[in-house]
Amino acid sequence: MLTGKILVAGQWRESNRTFSGLDAASGEALKPEFFEASAGDVADACAAAAEAQKVFGTLPLKERAAFLRLTADKIDALGDKLTQRAMAESGLPEARLNGERGRTVGQLRLFADEVEDGAWQDLRIDHSDPGRTPPKPDLRMRKISLGPVAVFGASNFPLAFSVAGGDTASALAAGCCVVVKGHPAHPGTSELVAGAIAEAVAESDLPAGIFSLLSGTDYALGEALVSDPRIAAVGFTGSRAGGLALMQLAAAREVPIPVYAEMSSINPVVLMPARLKQGPADLALAYVGSLSLGAGQFCTNPGIILTVEGEATDHFLVATKDALAAVPAQTMLTGGISEAYRSGVAKLGGLDGAELLGVGEDGSATCGRAHVYTVSGADFMDNNNFGQEVFGPSSIVVRCADLAEVARVLEGLEGQLTATLHMIEDDYEEASRLIPILEQKAGRIIANAWPTGVDVTHAMVHGGPYPATSDGRSTSVGTLAIDRFLRPVSYQDMPSALLASQLQDDSSATLRRIDGEWLKQH
Amino acid sequence: MLTGKILVAGQWRESNRTFSGLDAASGEALKPEFFEASAGDVADACAAAAEAQKVFGTLPLKERAAFLRLTADKIDALGDKLTQRAMAESGLPEARLNGERGRTVGQLRLFADEVEDGAWQDLRIDHSDPGRTPPKPDLRMRKISLGPVAVFGASNFPLAFSVAGGDTASALAAGCCVVVKGHPAHPGTSELVAGAIAEAVAESDLPAGIFSLLSGTDYALGEALVSDPRIAAVGFTGSRAGGLALMQLAAAREVPIPVYAEMSSINPVVLMPARLKQGPADLALAYVGSLSLGAGQFCTNPGIILTVEGEATDHFLVATKDALAAVPAQTMLTGGISEAYRSGVAKLGGLDGAELLGVGEDGSATCGRAHVYTVSGADFMDNNNFGQEVFGPSSIVVRCADLAEVARVLEGLEGQLTATLHMIEDDYEEASRLIPILEQKAGRIIANAWPTGVDVTHAMVHGGPYPATSDGRSTSVGTLAIDRFLRPVSYQDMPSALLASQLQDDSSATLRRIDGEWLKQH
Repeated sequence: MLTGKILVAGQWRESNRTFSGLDAASGEALKPEFFEASAGDVADACAAAAEAQKVFGTLPLKERAAFLRLTADKIDALGDKLTQRAMAESGLPEARLNGERGRTVGQLRLFADEVEDGAWQDLRIDHSDPGRTPPKPDLRMRKISLGPVAVFGASNFPLAFSVAGGDTASALAAGCCVVVKGHPAHPGTSELVAGAIAEAVAESDLPAGIFSLLSGTDYALGEALVSDPRIAAVGFTGSRAGGLALMQLAAAREVPIPVYAEMSSINPVVLMPARLKQGPADLALAYVGSLSLGAGQFCTNPGIILTVEGEATDHFLVATKDALAAVPAQTMLTGGISEAYRSGVAKLGGLDGAELLGVGEDGSATCGRAHVYTVSGADFMDNNNFGQEVFGPSSIVVRCADLAEVARVLEGLEGQLTATLHMIEDDYEEASRLIPILEQKAGRIIANAWPTGVDVTHAMVHGGPYPATSDGRSTSVGTLAIDRFLRPVSYQDMPSALLASQLQDDSSATLRRIDGEWLKQH
Repeated sequence: MLTGKILVAGQWRESNRTFSGLDAASGEALKPEFFEASAGDVADACAAAAEAQKVFGTLPLKERAAFLRLTADKIDALGDKLTQRAMAESGLPEARLNGERGRTVGQLRLFADEVEDGAWQDLRIDHSDPGRTPPKPDLRMRKISLGPVAVFGASNFPLAFSVAGGDTASALAAGCCVVVKGHPAHPGTSELVAGAIAEAVAESDLPAGIFSLLSGTDYALGEALVSDPRIAAVGFTGSRAGGLALMQLAAAREVPIPVYAEMSSINPVVLMPARLKQGPADLALAYVGSLSLGAGQFCTNPGIILTVEGEATDHFLVATKDALAAVPAQTMLTGGISEAYRSGVAKLGGLDGAELLGVGEDGSATCGRAHVYTVSGADFMDNNNFGQEVFGPSSIVVRCADLAEVARVLEGLEGQLTATLHMIEDDYEEASRLIPILEQKAGRIIANAWPTGVDVTHAMVHGGPYPATSDGRSTSVGTLAIDRFLRPVSYQDMPSALLASQLQDDSSATLRRIDGEWLKQH
């Protein structure tokens, strides 16, 4: 059923080099072999995207929304075939991947609704005033598509942040054609999803250049894509080294372009004293559950817990150690990730002041074994390496002398995707002093929950100050993600006949700002 | 009355090096001497800004708006003293500078209204749904201040795009403290305006670190400012070389920050055939008026006119030449600018295919003499140098074979601030084919007017694809400019007592998005 071919603007191609997807658990090559995309494929895909952009960027919003919904239906229809292939390639369990397919098609449908809502266009009209000195012109603004977007599939969400994931969905919603650099860890999953998108493009009578999938194992492939002059923006989720390389490449282009890279985060969680005292054991259970979920391979994994020394913390640590001992070793996404995890955990354990609190069950070479360390607040602040992400089920509990030290540890952290407070009412006063610090450090502040789990809604921010992301002004999850791929254009004294319908006086657009006043319709 | 001192967080300082503002017309040094700010002043100003940020960033919006209005009043009250000093330092005429003061205080007041409107916070609430699988959390989003902003004063708008200009006004509106690198061409004007802001800060009982002015002549001063780890964003209007240097500096920081640089634009103007035929002489008059306004020292100066060969174009060229001959030479902003203009005009005239159509009156060494060249479409496309900005009253008319060639010339241009179409109804069909090209090239598309003149309103976009600006997703003029200095933060399951009032259920915020629906109040 799988062909291993490259998808360039509706055309399935072969090449003279191949690679294989590997079974995550066994490390064995899966069938079929996949063709490596070349620089020539990049150029063809980008040329087709630039040409298709003229049609897709100006498509009526209802048609754009219908295309997104059809894409969702096509992916849903892949059903178990998709789940089984993704399980083999990623080692993730069936229920998780079925859930992830639901999230993937759910976000495509959410963006379809968002396209139709249309408020993201930031429509504004300032009527003329010929009597003013100088005469005031008629000005009308909207946001339009930025242009073709390069999306890098992420290994840890083979569906929801890969070929048809959040970056692709939001870029298509913005009217941007997409060229995906497929992640080599799940080429079969990628081909299945790309086939679904290509079918939706064809059945919608849209230009095939709207979507291409280029898979391969060489860094040069991604570099060629980001360097192509027709690419207008980049979406990436992955390692800090990978994100930084793309940022540098994009900044060095003749025409620099924005890179939206989601890179690394250790997601601090503060256990406020009154809350901790109330129930250290239930916090420990939930903590271990969150940190080991999906073998810890989430960008929002709770990598650092901040707590104040004392009896309640001692209870929490004992309960954490006990819970940890029952955590089974889980297959990690790739051999490279499990190797990096093992060396990262060893490095963390070797830092001055780090003490191993406990470990989970051991497993095979492709598995990740859960690890929790402790360290004092002072030792943590002495060494920046404690603040570096170890991708996998590893975490560190920072035992602080008091809440003032908790605040200092937080102030010393780099930018984060999330920051969490566990608290009850007796903690609110102290918490209110920490929140302004957390607002400066993170894109999402969570109360009394664990950071894993990212809801795809309107008010979600999955972003945060550098180096959590390359651009803290944006989110990669939720409807605001569309704004990354837009730019404003203003029309001055333009005859109505030449204006887009949304900018005409009698438009039925949902939300517009007219002469400074917000006007809502329907 | 002027002291020549540096303003660091409310404190007026001296240093051991000085420079002078020069009389633009005579080139003579004006009194008093000004103290050069040092790297130490940068560090102190940024430290004070970071500290003040904690207060200013969370100030109730009504108080923030009142501070902006008081600042406007203080600047207005400087009256003729400000105009006279700016005239001497810039060589710009009295009426222009009085108008520019009006624009400056007008935009501060517009941003005060905008702060109170509050919709720029993009307030969103998604209520929880405990019955969903998995349970849906309560999520609430708002945009908050990015942090202290470095603003570079521009020489060509000593009031409206300098110390209290558009970048400063929009940054303050966003709740960001501002450290201004004063332009050395108008240090006295800068000191007067800075004094007004400092008074407004003090009378508002706000921390003095909200605003600092550091003037000086060394590039190292601006470099130190952009490199300071407490600076979160940069606003700049100036040369392409200057903007690119700041972009590189900002990208190379340990924590990269956004740079909003407005750099260069030649602002293409297309004379559509039917319109041109209707009145070549009136178009020529208006063209020469726009190109010579303010000695051509506008970022929206019409630097290139596109027209189709024929009788009407011949009429237009004769009328342009005649109108040009009557244009008096005007004092340019600085000696450096008039030298660069003279060499730029000479270089343009030396390009293959360039023919001098006419010149304005000659003047002294500090003046700019208007120049208009012609070139064929083919020759223009043969040499990228035709597309480079010459800052001053110079322009080039591109004589194209037909409208298809006009389209090709437009497609070959770099990003622009504006693009203009002169047209009547008979031209609409052809114009509708050019507009999609112009949308890709420019931030503002103008019909039947000239690009000089930038209204400060809600629907204005003064921005455009690179290299018109460093970031085509933004505008530096109009209320949308506030968005450059904000980032979104989401709060998950946060107790109401710990939420900002705008995010509480019973808030009276003007516009919020609740469970996906836009809710307007008042």
